[in-house]
Amino acid sequence: MNYRLVLRYIGYIVLLEGLFMIPAMLISLFSHEKAAWMAFLGTILFSEIVGFLLTRLRCHDTMQAREGFATVALGWIMMSLVGALPFFFSGAIPNFLDCWFETVSGFTTTGSSILPTVENLPYGILYWRSFIIWLGGMGVLVFLLAVVPLTRGSGSPLQLMKAESPGPSVGKLTPTIRRTSRRLYEIYIALTVLEIILLLAGGMPLFEAVTHSFSTAGTGGFSVKNLSIGAYDSPYLQAVVGVFMMLFGVNFSVYYLILTRQFRAAWKNEEVRLYIAIMAGATLLIAINILPSYTDGARAFLDSFFQVSSIMTTTGFSTVNFDLWPEFSRLLLVILMLVGACAGSTGGGIKVSRLIILFKHLKNEMGAMLRPHSVRTVRMDGKKTDDGIVRGTTAFLVAYLAIAIFSMILVALDNYSQETTATAVLTCLNNIGPGLDLVGPMGNFSSFSGLSKFVLSLDMLFGRLEIFPLLFLFTPAAWERPRKSKRMENSVIDA
Amino acid sequence: MNYRLVLRYIGYIVLLEGLFMIPAMLISLFSHEKAAWMAFLGTILFSEIVGFLLTRLRCHDTMQAREGFATVALGWIMMSLVGALPFFFSGAIPNFLDCWFETVSGFTTTGSSILPTVENLPYGILYWRSFIIWLGGMGVLVFLLAVVPLTRGSGSPLQLMKAESPGPSVGKLTPTIRRTSRRLYEIYIALTVLEIILLLAGGMPLFEAVTHSFSTAGTGGFSVKNLSIGAYDSPYLQAVVGVFMMLFGVNFSVYYLILTRQFRAAWKNEEVRLYIAIMAGATLLIAINILPSYTDGARAFLDSFFQVSSIMTTTGFSTVNFDLWPEFSRLLLVILMLVGACAGSTGGGIKVSRLIILFKHLKNEMGAMLRPHSVRTVRMDGKKTDDGIVRGTTAFLVAYLAIAIFSMILVALDNYSQETTATAVLTCLNNIGPGLDLVGPMGNFSSFSGLSKFVLSLDMLFGRLEIFPLLFLFTPAAWERPRKSKRMENSVIDA
Repeated sequence: MNYRLVLRYIGYIVLLEGLFMIPAMLISLFSHEKAAWMAFLGTILFSEIVGFLLTRLRCHDTMQAREGFATVALGWIMMSLVGALPFFFSGAIPNFLDCWFETVSGFTTTGSSILPTVENLPYGILYWRSFIIWLGGMGVLVFLLAVVPLTRGSGSPLQLMKAESPGPSVGKLTPTIRRTSRRLYEIYIALTVLEIILLLAGGMPLFEAVTHSFSTAGTGGFSVKNLSIGAYDSPYLQAVVGVFMMLFGVNFSVYYLILTRQFRAAWKNEEVRLYIAIMAGATLLIAINILPSYTDGARAFLDSFFQVSSIMTTTGFSTVNFDLWPEFSRLLLVILMLVGACAGSTGGGIKVSRLIILFKHLKNEMGAMLRPHSVRTVRMDGKKTDDGIVRGTTAFLVAYLAIAIFSMILVALDNYSQETTATAVLTCLNNIGPGLDLVGPMGNFSSFSGLSKFVLSLDMLFGRLEIFPLLFLFTPAAWERPRKSKRMENSVIDA
Repeated sequence: MNYRLVLRYIGYIVLLEGLFMIPAMLISLFSHEKAAWMAFLGTILFSEIVGFLLTRLRCHDTMQAREGFATVALGWIMMSLVGALPFFFSGAIPNFLDCWFETVSGFTTTGSSILPTVENLPYGILYWRSFIIWLGGMGVLVFLLAVVPLTRGSGSPLQLMKAESPGPSVGKLTPTIRRTSRRLYEIYIALTVLEIILLLAGGMPLFEAVTHSFSTAGTGGFSVKNLSIGAYDSPYLQAVVGVFMMLFGVNFSVYYLILTRQFRAAWKNEEVRLYIAIMAGATLLIAINILPSYTDGARAFLDSFFQVSSIMTTTGFSTVNFDLWPEFSRLLLVILMLVGACAGSTGGGIKVSRLIILFKHLKNEMGAMLRPHSVRTVRMDGKKTDDGIVRGTTAFLVAYLAIAIFSMILVALDNYSQETTATAVLTCLNNIGPGLDLVGPMGNFSSFSGLSKFVLSLDMLFGRLEIFPLLFLFTPAAWERPRKSKRMENSVIDA
């Protein structure tokens, strides 16, 4: 392992994070929130100094897969520790473990909160809480790759992008990683600004429009209102947020295809088609299931759509307390938690494309049981996929289930109901936010023990980083001495 | 599809089933249970006539994979329909769907019951209810293969055995399938008789010793007592049943190795080692967790061991109401439900060997992420496995999860708690018996709707037949016209 290179990248991350805190500090300054702006100022100074020192480290410049994984995993842990400091120093959240939980929840775009109420928090803190969702959604390393010429090693940017971006495979939109990262952020910013405008048009105050748009864009779900989007009685505002959650759950490469007028290719995207089909089906089924308790059918439909969109995109906003819905609807929502959004979006979960790969794999294997010599290639969007994609996806499923089950065992020590335990783990691992029962949309995570909060924070990181980068930190292989063999290095970079 | 061949095999199954009913009829006759012995007599006559006619069908004798799957799937469905007739005709269970549920539950060695109380049932019925567990445990087709020279097609016996026997791969113990089937049944009978003797020695009446031994041997869990094994206040009896459940969950090939003095090979069996390790670990953790509510530590340990052994081997007997245990213990039991027993045993669940394969696969893939050209072969017991084993196992996992989730959605329509819905499906799919909450050890399945009972019955069959044979009935590929190509046939038989 090339530790120095990893540390240097972490330096860049911390440096950047400090800069991103400046708007939050200014908001607190102009809102006369003294404790908050001083907390931000202190954190900014700390991160600029630490970041500057780390980026001065001299090291060999080639990044292999292990350094890519380690940079992403350790970088995200460091980033969430630094990001937690303003919550702690400002006194907004007294316990540091709670601060870390809240920050990890933000960066990983989960949106689970240990705060029973948020409307009493300083504006700067509320802004920061929403902004880290926006930054975590597309990824801080992807941002770095877009703006900083980090390294001359040809493999490095791809390794980092692979490790930080969600989904079984990263499709390069453009020939270079740097251009791809820029395009992604351009689309991301454009959609966020569009949502802000539409929310303003519906009468939402500027601060709330910006923070809610950040939370929607990152599919995070932190709200500046205690009642989340349910605080707005306007069907227009709820519909706008509902639709934008859905849009941010779409594979961004589809937007790139549309922008470059490749409509046919965009239309053919199997994942987005299935994503929309699942969302439409679940909306309909739940609307029918909850209809008896509504006088207004359209209202039942909107509530169903909003909650489905929120859960499936792993955002976690709510407009109603779906914990009170019939068991059929509640179970469908739990299943949507598992499914998640599209690969290459800001949403979490297992991802629709992985489900497609898994089911095509199942179909191939069943065919092979009847005809052992049949072809077993999995095709996506009409193209053959690499054989490794199926193996990697099945390995992901195994790791995902193992982490979920192991986490549930630890959280069960708190002796809350199985529903609370199971959905708390699933909502964190899939980066959603609320679960059912005690952690339902009207509940929060404050009553869990320290151990459970730590486990759930790790689950959020596992979910956002798609398991492997973080899992590697737990294997001896990740900490071996660097290999000097030239052949080995080349083979890694070629891959 | 060679329908006539499939029907002929079903004829043999029904013929045999009728013969196996004779002891039950005699028990009812000598106990002066008129309705019951007449019900048995009628069913026996019916099955001998139908069976005889079906076995007279003339057909092409070669069995391909699809005929193997269809024979097993349709054979088991037919077997459970015929086996349900005595319950129905005797009036023991008034509703035929309930009769079918109970019979499927028996044959698949699940042990879930729709009966709130059993001690009022006729002896013949109680005997039959336990005997079908014993028969279903090792498999009726395996029995057929052991006693009847069914067919001259060289591929047939292997196809049937593969389709009916649990586990990712069938290891032939001896050079021929017929000898293998005989050895399996010899070991099975010997262990069953040993348990009967030990239970008698502990003072259990003969009828109860025989029926409970049948239920233990098949890892089914139907009891002739309302309180299950909890009806016996003797730690000796509870320990005997607990240990025998564990023994019947061991891969039978290990017993064969021991009998043929291949102790080293038996000792090296990875699956059995992990099986025992998991059982020991879970017993210890649960014993510690429940200890505060016990005055006697040894009692807590015995209760923990009995319940762990019962759930992990998917038997389903109980000595205490574990639904009242702390959440940590309850969750561990649910996880043990998923794990299940060893392949090649009479137990259900995902099976320990599949978990080993899945985790080795995960480890290989993680290695390959660091070193793309590393070897990815999975080794079991020191031997390389076929590459298809990993693919087949991951496909099994996908199908298993899909069926579990789809079943839960349908059962959730009954609007019982998520815990009831989820554990009802898991306990049926893994052939265990009791779940938690409404279907806990003191509950039963009578209050579910007809749809749910039907879905849960299918889940039991999916679980016992390890998904694929039954799943094939739902695919068009299974119903294609037979291929005449000689090459194709050979390739299937070679596999």
